[in-house]
Amino acid sequence: MSRKTATLLISCPDRTGIVAAVSEFVHRHGGNLVHSDQHTDRTAGLFLQRLEWEQERFALSAAEFPAAFQPLATRFEMTWELRAAEQPPRMAILVSKHGHCLYDLLARHRMAQLGAEIPLVVSNHPDLESATRDLGVDFLHLPVSPATKSQQEAALLERLQAERVDVIVLARYMQVLSAGFLSHWQHRVINIHHSFLPAFAGARPYHQAHERGVKIIGATAHYATQDLDEGPIIAQDVVRVSHRDSVRDLVAKGRDLEKIVLARAVSDHLADRVLVYGNKTVVFD
Amino acid sequence: MSRKTATLLISCPDRTGIVAAVSEFVHRHGGNLVHSDQHTDRTAGLFLQRLEWEQERFALSAAEFPAAFQPLATRFEMTWELRAAEQPPRMAILVSKHGHCLYDLLARHRMAQLGAEIPLVVSNHPDLESATRDLGVDFLHLPVSPATKSQQEAALLERLQAERVDVIVLARYMQVLSAGFLSHWQHRVINIHHSFLPAFAGARPYHQAHERGVKIIGATAHYATQDLDEGPIIAQDVVRVSHRDSVRDLVAKGRDLEKIVLARAVSDHLADRVLVYGNKTVVFD
Amino acid sequence: MSRKTATLLISCPDRTGIVAAVSEFVHRHGGNLVHSDQHTDRTAGLFLQRLEWEQERFALSAAEFPAAFQPLATRFEMTWELRAAEQPPRMAILVSKHGHCLYDLLARHRMAQLGAEIPLVVSNHPDLESATRDLGVDFLHLPVSPATKSQQEAALLERLQAERVDVIVLARYMQVLSAGFLSHWQHRVINIHHSFLPAFAGARPYHQAHERGVKIIGATAHYATQDLDEGPIIAQDVVRVSHRDSVRDLVAKGRDLEKIVLARAVSDHLADRVLVYGNKTVVFD
Amino acid sequence: MSRKTATLLISCPDRTGIVAAVSEFVHRHGGNLVHSDQHTDRTAGLFLQRLEWEQERFALSAAEFPAAFQPLATRFEMTWELRAAEQPPRMAILVSKHGHCLYDLLARHRMAQLGAEIPLVVSNHPDLESATRDLGVDFLHLPVSPATKSQQEAALLERLQAERVDVIVLARYMQVLSAGFLSHWQHRVINIHHSFLPAFAGARPYHQAHERGVKIIGATAHYATQDLDEGPIIAQDVVRVSHRDSVRDLVAKGRDLEKIVLARAVSDHLADRVLVYGNKTVVFD
Repeated sequence: MSRKTATLLISCPDRTGIVAAVSEFVHRHGGNLVHSDQHTDRTAGLFLQRLEWEQERFALSAAEFPAAFQPLATRFEMTWELRAAEQPPRMAILVSKHGHCLYDLLARHRMAQLGAEIPLVVSNHPDLESATRDLGVDFLHLPVSPATKSQQEAALLERLQAERVDVIVLARYMQVLSAGFLSHWQHRVINIHHSFLPAFAGARPYHQAHERGVKIIGATAHYATQDLDEGPIIAQDVVRVSHRDSVRDLVAKGRDLEKIVLARAVSDHLADRVLVYGNKTVVFD
Repeated sequence: MSRKTATLLISCPDRTGIVAAVSEFVHRHGGNLVHSDQHTDRTAGLFLQRLEWEQERFALSAAEFPAAFQPLATRFEMTWELRAAEQPPRMAILVSKHGHCLYDLLARHRMAQLGAEIPLVVSNHPDLESATRDLGVDFLHLPVSPATKSQQEAALLERLQAERVDVIVLARYMQVLSAGFLSHWQHRVINIHHSFLPAFAGARPYHQAHERGVKIIGATAHYATQDLDEGPIIAQDVVRVSHRDSVRDLVAKGRDLEKIVLARAVSDHLADRVLVYGNKTVVFD
Repeated sequence: MSRKTATLLISCPDRTGIVAAVSEFVHRHGGNLVHSDQHTDRTAGLFLQRLEWEQERFALSAAEFPAAFQPLATRFEMTWELRAAEQPPRMAILVSKHGHCLYDLLARHRMAQLGAEIPLVVSNHPDLESATRDLGVDFLHLPVSPATKSQQEAALLERLQAERVDVIVLARYMQVLSAGFLSHWQHRVINIHHSFLPAFAGARPYHQAHERGVKIIGATAHYATQDLDEGPIIAQDVVRVSHRDSVRDLVAKGRDLEKIVLARAVSDHLADRVLVYGNKTVVFD
Repeated sequence: MSRKTATLLISCPDRTGIVAAVSEFVHRHGGNLVHSDQHTDRTAGLFLQRLEWEQERFALSAAEFPAAFQPLATRFEMTWELRAAEQPPRMAILVSKHGHCLYDLLARHRMAQLGAEIPLVVSNHPDLESATRDLGVDFLHLPVSPATKSQQEAALLERLQAERVDVIVLARYMQVLSAGFLSHWQHRVINIHHSFLPAFAGARPYHQAHERGVKIIGATAHYATQDLDEGPIIAQDVVRVSHRDSVRDLVAKGRDLEKIVLARAVSDHLADRVLVYGNKTVVFD
C-alpha cells in the first residue's frame, strides 16, 4: 500500500518489438517495473499489455508522460491509458432492496481494502438507508416509477456528476440504465448478474436455473452496456447445487457467489487490472 | 462388488406415511437397507425415493416382487421400477472422430469399474476402429451422408436391438438421432455436450465461449431427447479459463471435463442412481 | 420462514427397521415430514438420522415428546436430540483484530438470514468496537495478557453464561480456549481456521502455504476442541492460487474463503443440520 | 502444432532492464515472440521468465545460441535453459497395479496430445502388461522385493538410460526411488500423490482423509525428490466429498482427480512451461 506505482494499459496491432520498446522506455526513465504482463489475441491480431512501475525514481510526471510517450505510441499505433493514482477513485454504489452486495462492499471499504472513496449510495427504495448510514456512507433515495423513469435517471446523473464519481457499481440495482447514461461512464459501470452468463440472462435467473435442473449455478460481474447482460465479463464463479436445493436455497447460495464475484471485479477494476477490448476483458493478475 | 443388492426407484404424489410404509415393506420381507434416500419436490408436489437392499435374505424374487408390492404402490399412486441386477446392463458407445471420451470409457470398462458389458462401439467414421479393437471391443463403421441418414439410422437401430443394448452413450457422436430412434431407449441415451448448458447450446460451443469471453467453461451430460441439448441434465462440471486461453486451449481443457462428466453420468446411470421426472433428474448419492 | 418445524437428530447402532419405526412414530403423531435424511457409517456400524416435521398438527409438545419417544429410543439404543425451536438460539461472536468474518456475520444477522439472536461480540482488542456497535450489537472488550489469561477467560465465561449463550463463533479469535471453558459448550463452539486442514495447522498458515508452493488454498470451519485444529470439520472450501500470488494475495483471497465457509458452518449448525459422531460430522443437506 | 518454436527459461536476481534486454535480444535476431511471461518473487529477490518464439526467421541455430546469448546472461547473472525442440522428449512411465493414470497417459499419447515419445512402461507387477502392449507401448516387468530392491533399481536405471529417457512419470508407482537414482533426472521425475499435499502425506491418504472427516479431497503432482512427498508442486486439484462417501467412494473420486492432475503436470512439463526454483515451481500459462 505504501509503495506508489503508476499503471500503463496498452493495446495495439500485434507486431514484433513492442515489449522491448515499452520496457526500454520505462527503464530509460528510471521506472522499476513491479508488474508487467502482456497478452496477444492472435485471432484479433491484437497485443495488450499492462505495466506497473514505482513512481519514486520515475523521471516523468503524469503531465510530462504523454509528450514523452507519444512517439512510441504513434509508431506502434497504440491505444493507451496511464493511471498515475494520486487520488483514490470515487465510487458510487446503486442498490434496490437486496443488501448482501452492499454490506459486503461497505465492509471492505471500512476495512480499507478497496482503495476507493465511496461518496454515496443511491437506491430506488428506502430499505437500505440505515444499513448504509450506519456504515458511515451517505444515502440518496431516488424513487422511480414507469412515469418518472427518465427524470429519475436525470437526477441520478446530475448527482453522480456533482460527486465527481469515477466508477459506478450496480450492486443488485434492478433498474435498466439508458445508453445515454452509460455513455458517461463507458467501461466504468460494473453490474452483477445472478447467473452464469450467457445462461439465464434476463429476469429471475434462479427460477430459470431451478426449472432447467442444472447441477451448478453461477454469478457474473460485467461492464454494463446498452445490451442488457451482454457487456464484457470481468469475473465469474460457480457453486454446485443438487435436486435437494429449492429456489430459495439457490437464492441463498447465489447471494454468497454474487457478493464475492462482484467484489473481485470491483477490486480488479480499481487496481487497473482490467483492459477491455471488443466485448471481452483481459484481467491481468 | 460382492454384495448383491436390489434397487427400487419410486415417484408419487407427496403424502405422509410413504417412507414408513415402504421401509416397513422392505423390512418385513427381510431386506437389509444399504441405501435409502428420498427427495420431495414441493413445487411439483412430488415424492421421489431410492432404496437399495441386500438380496441375500430378501424373501421376494424379482418375479414375485410386483404382486407383493402392488397394493402399496396403488395406495400411494406410485410409479416405480425395480432393478434386481442379475445380469449387467449392455451398453453401446457411439462416437465420431474425437476419441477422448471413448478411450476413457473403454479404460474404465477394462478396469471393471463400470458394471456393464460393452458389446460394441459404432461410429460414422473409421478413425477410432483400431483404438476400439485394441482395447478389446467390437467396432461397427456405419458411414452417413445427408442422403443416407435414415438408412444409416435404421441399420444402427437394427444392430443395437440385435445386441440387446440397454443403454447408449453418445461419446461425442456428431449426428442427431431421430425421435423415433430415441423412443426405443427413453432416458437411456446419454449425451455429452461440450458446454455448461443452457449456455452455448448448438454447434461449436468452445468457439462461442471464446467469442463471449467467459471466465469459466463447462461440460454437461444429459439424456438425449428430441429437443437437442434440452434433455434432463445428469451431471455438469466446469473449469476456470482466462484471456490466455485460445480456442485450442479451451478445447484441450474441455476434453478433460467432457470425459470426466460423461463417465460420472454413465456410472450414476448404471448404478441406478438417476431418477428422471419432468425434464429434471434426481441423482441419489 | 413462517412454517414452524421440529428437528430430531438420532444416532444408534445400525440395525434393520429403524427408519420404518421412526417415520411411523412421527407419522402416527400427525407430523408431516418436510425433511428426512439418514446416513449409515458402515465402518463404525452407526446409523444417523435427521428428521424435520411441521409442528402444526403434531400431537406431542416438546415436553411430552421424551416420554412418548423413549420406548423406541431404548429399543434401538438411540442417542437423540429434539430441537423444537420456539426461541431462536443465542449466539456470541469472539474476534480479535480481523473484521471480515465479523462484518459478514453481522450483515447476515441484520438481513435476518441466520435465525439467531446475537446478544454480544467479545474481543481481546478494541479495534472492532465501532464496527460492532454501528451494526447494532453490544461489544465487550476483554483484554488479555499471558499473566491474565485465566482471569480473562473466567470473565468471558461468566458473561457468556449470564447472556445465556447457546453457541459461540470464533470469528478469527486468536486466543486458545481452555478445555474447561469448552466443556460448557461441547460441539457448540465453531472456529474458522485459515487453511485447508489438516494442511497447515497452527500459526501463519498463509505463510506456510506460500512457502510450500501449493496451487490451491483453503479454509476450514470446525468445532473447537481441546486439541487445537483437530475438532470435527463442518465445512471447507478452496480457491486456486498461483506463483503470481504473494502472501498478501493469499491473505486477501483467503479472507473471502474464510467468511463464506464460516457462515456456511454457522448456518448449518443453527439449522440443526450438523450431527457430530466421533471426530466427524454429518451435515444433512 | 505445425509452427516450430523455441523456448527460453531464465532465472536471475531481480534487476531493472532484464525484460527490455532479453526481448530486444530475441527481436534483434528475428524471433517473433508467441509467448512471453515473467514472474518476480520479491521475497526471494528473484526474476523468472519464459519466452517462446517462432524459429522460422530466427537467425541463431541452437548451436549458435549460447555464444550469442552469454554476454547478456553474464551481465544479469542468469541461469538459463534453451529448448529448441527438434526431437520430441522421450518419456518413461512407471506403474504398479493401478491402471487409471497409465490408461489416461497412453490414450493421450495415441491421440498425439502429449508431444513426447513413450519408449516403454516399467512395472514391478505384471498386471498392466496387456493394457500397455494393447495400446502399442513396450512393457518391462521388473519385480522387486526388499532383498532385491537395489538390484531392481540398478536394472531400471540401466534400461532407462539405454532408452535415453528424458522424463519419468510415476503413474502410481508404489516404490520409493533412491536419491542416487533421482539425481540422474533432477526435476524430471513427476509423481502423483493421491492427496492434497501437504495434507495426508505418506501411505493410504484416502483412509486418512476418511478418518479425519474432511469435506474435500485432492491430488498433487510434484517433482520427486529425496524427501518423499516434499518435492516442488506442479499441479493440484480437489473434489468435494461428504459423509456419504465411503473410503471406496473417495478412491473412485480420487482416481479421476489423479489422472487429470498428473496429465496436466506432464503436459506443462513437456511444453517447457514449468520452472523450478527453490522448492517451488512457476507454471507459465
